[in-house]
Parts: sequence; C-alpha cells; structure tokens
Amino acid sequence: MNIVLFEGHEIGKPLPRRDPRTLHLLKVLRKKAGDFFDAGVLGGCLGRGRIEAVGPDGSRGPDGAWGPDGALWFSLDLREAPPPRVPIRVAVGFPRPIQLRRLLRDLSNLGVAAVDLLGTELGEKSYRDTKLLADGGARSALIEGAVQARDTGLPGLSVYPSLDAWLAEKPWAASAETPGERGPLLAAADNVRPGGSLAALPLVKRGVVLAIGPERGWSDRERDLFEAAGFIRLSLGRRALRTETACTAAVVLAMEKMGELG
Amino acid sequence: MNIVLFEGHEIGKPLPRRDPRTLHLLKVLRKKAGDFFDAGVLGGCLGRGRIEAVGPDGSRGPDGAWGPDGALWFSLDLREAPPPRVPIRVAVGFPRPIQLRRLLRDLSNLGVAAVDLLGTELGEKSYRDTKLLADGGARSALIEGAVQARDTGLPGLSVYPSLDAWLAEKPWAASAETPGERGPLLAAADNVRPGGSLAALPLVKRGVVLAIGPERGWSDRERDLFEAAGFIRLSLGRRALRTETACTAAVVLAMEKMGELG
Repeated sequence: MNIVLFEGHEIGKPLPRRDPRTLHLLKVLRKKAGDFFDAGVLGGCLGRGRIEAVGPDGSRGPDGAWGPDGALWFSLDLREAPPPRVPIRVAVGFPRPIQLRRLLRDLSNLGVAAVDLLGTELGEKSYRDTKLLADGGARSALIEGAVQARDTGLPGLSVYPSLDAWLAEKPWAASAETPGERGPLLAAADNVRPGGSLAALPLVKRGVVLAIGPERGWSDRERDLFEAAGFIRLSLGRRALRTETACTAAVVLAMEKMGELG
Repeated sequence: MNIVLFEGHEIGKPLPRRDPRTLHLLKVLRKKAGDFFDAGVLGGCLGRGRIEAVGPDGSRGPDGAWGPDGALWFSLDLREAPPPRVPIRVAVGFPRPIQLRRLLRDLSNLGVAAVDLLGTELGEKSYRDTKLLADGGARSALIEGAVQARDTGLPGLSVYPSLDAWLAEKPWAASAETPGERGPLLAAADNVRPGGSLAALPLVKRGVVLAIGPERGWSDRERDLFEAAGFIRLSLGRRALRTETACTAAVVLAMEKMGELG
C-alpha cells in the first residue's frame, strides 16, 4: 500500500479493526497513535493522515464518542492535488471475470481516464454476467491500482452491450478526458488485419481512444464498423498477446507516443 | 490455446484423456479423428498436427499398440521455424509467488530471450522459497505464454541469490541472446532516482538487459552497484507501477525502441 485511501463517507469515523488499511498501518507499518501516514480521499486531494487513537473495538474516540466497530481514529491534512489523469480511454472486450479484476487494477494503476467494457461478437457471452460490477469488486480493483500509483482518482467505468452501442454513443465525443482540437485519435488494436503499427505512430498531441478486442479478436463486421467510425486498426507487434497484456502494452505505447512517460 | 505444444518426449505416445490439450481439442474445438490442428514441439518447429485416433482409456492406437492411459493419438507435420526471440533479458526482484506465475507467462508471451529472478535487499525473503521453480509450475507458466504467442521457444530462466551475484556473473556477457558490437544496453528501472526515462531513449540497435526491482524498489547500495556495473537507471513514467505491470511496460517500451513492434 503506497498510500491509504479513504472514501469521503469514511472521514470522521473510526476505521474498523479488521479493515485492511487498519491492519496495514498497525501490523505492516507498525504505526502507533500520533504517527503520520500518506493518505488521500478518493476523488479529492493527497496529503498525510495522523493516527489519533488506537483501541480495541468499543474504545472511545478522541472526541469522547464511542466507536462501536472502530479501532483506529484518524485525522487528515490533505492539500496536494492528485496527478493528472492520462487522456486515454480504453474499451476492451469483456475478459474472463478473473482477468477483469486484474485488468481494471492495471488500467487504474496506469492512470487512464476511462475504461469501457464491451460485449463483442466473438467474446464469450457468459463473461458479461460478472458480479464484479454490482458487488463493488470492480471499484475495489480500481482503488487497488490507484493506491499503487499514489492517486486519488479512478478511471470512469462503463459497460456497453455491443461495439455498435459503444460506437453509437461515442462516449469520448464530448469528453474532457480526451482533449484535442480534432478530437481524440481513434485506434483499434488488431493483429489480424492491421493498417499499421501502434509503435510506428508519430507524436500524438491529443487524447487517444484504444479499443482492445476479446480473446478471439474482432469479427469482420466489427472491423467494418471501426472503419466506418473513423478508427485506424493498429498492430501491437507480431505476437498475439493476452487481453490483459495487450491492454497494458497498448496503453504504455500510447502514453509513450503522447509524451506522457517523460 | 492458439497452438497445441508438445514436449519432445511426448511424441509418438498418446495424449492422456484428461490432459488439458486433449480436452481443448475434443471439447472446445470439437475435433475428431482425421482433423488437423495447429501444433508445435517445444524447442522445435511449428506446423500442423492430425488426430489419428480417439478412444477411451485402454484403446488400441493406430499401430496396434495399447495405450493404457492414453486417449488421443496424433501425428505431427512441423516445418515452420518459430518466431525469433526478442533480444531482451529481464532480471526481476522475486515477486509474490502468485505474481511470479503471471509474470513468467507474460514475459514468455512477449518473447523475451531470458528471465533472471533476483534476490534483492528490499525484497521479501520469503518470496524466494517458491516451489514453482522445482515443481514445474514455472515451466508451465512459460509454456502458457508461448502457446498464446504461437511460439515453441521459451525464455531461459535462472535464479540469483542477490544483485551482487547476478552482476558478478554477467549472464548477458557471452550470450547470443543480446547481440550487439558494444554488448547490450544495460538499464535498471528506477522511478525514485532515475537518470532519464526509458521512453526517451533513441533507437536501440543492440540487445537490452532490463533490471526491474521488487515491490519496495532498489536499495541505495544496489543503485551504486548498478552504477559501477555500467547500468543506466531509467524511469518508466511518473506513476509507480506494480512489478508485473512494470515488467510488461519496460519490455514493450524496449521493444518499441528496438524496432521490434513494427
């Protein structure tokens, strides 16, 4: 844990004794009352937290109030703006549920502005029935990636039943996430019928929208849809990569082209 | 499974009924006797396989021999050379065992020539006690990455107790894996005290050796060791990445600088 992140509604209340953050602060970092730690509020600023009091469940907080389920009382002093989001929107064909968690974590770690999950023609339909989106698992995966990067911001996360629906809605069109006078660069990863290579792009001075196919790739009808919508189809190299690896590779290459990596 | 890979010693024998490859061919791809499939032999060539006979355990093979544990008899016609290996050697501080499997799979998927696992000063010592290296788990993770990439070659895999030991042995020195008149480019990923950025490197016309630290990064003594050994320390961007994501990012960026991605 590179930073301890809180939801806005958690401020001013004690952190439960068994919360992973409590365990991290007390057991891993061996912090005690009076000690400081790196902290942030999701959607807000970064700064430092201070452990005000530590006690067993049912202990009294510093203001005299009982915290029936809480063991760690803390205060926050947050004045630092979070890092800017990377103006990349990634759309990806639904991966296996076990991969989806890691994919969301990694895309959040990389700092992309938005992630769209797409139903696709060659994608496994059952993958869409994931509970991750409803049970908070998706959000906790995004938070895990943000914690790694010391970020308080999360990518926006949306779901579309099909590529048709995504292209019809054009979620990137009116979005501050992918700025640029001409609108963002629109690219679909495609190692089967590419029109060029992502690595061979010149400097990109605008936002980027990246579409990554599911395991079995795009259908020819989907390729035609991309073409009609103004997407270029770009290879990620000669080797077929796993969906997760392809997402990381595409985002890193796009960041490099955008000058985001220094 | 983009290709069915066999070990050399498996040729000429039936594939067990419960082998994942048998299940993939018969259940997922719904192949029958007489059907062809993409195949390769580890360390050898690519081509096609043919299912010669399918039967329950104890069935007789095409040559009349009993296959007591085997259910799928196959022949191979392999004439295509595997893709060339990418002349990158990756050394990485031991990650958590659960991450190690994925890391090996992904580095194999990307096609790197060699992977060295390093004990490091800030790395968790217990991570080194992984059974993956002895029980075949590491090799099966490498094979999984090769299957994804339709490759029959695997990265060489070595273990070093410390950065000192690795730098003393210089496994890249006499190696055809990282060619180049001047020897390979030596780079250590370091977001804490970088001397430049991997993304800002010009075209690299030689092999590359990439050292990626463990979760807690390099110690200052290790930074000094790198410096004395001629390594440049390069950032992967402003955000701290997970070890696995950092490995993929560093390899993809290095491949881009080497012109390996087209």
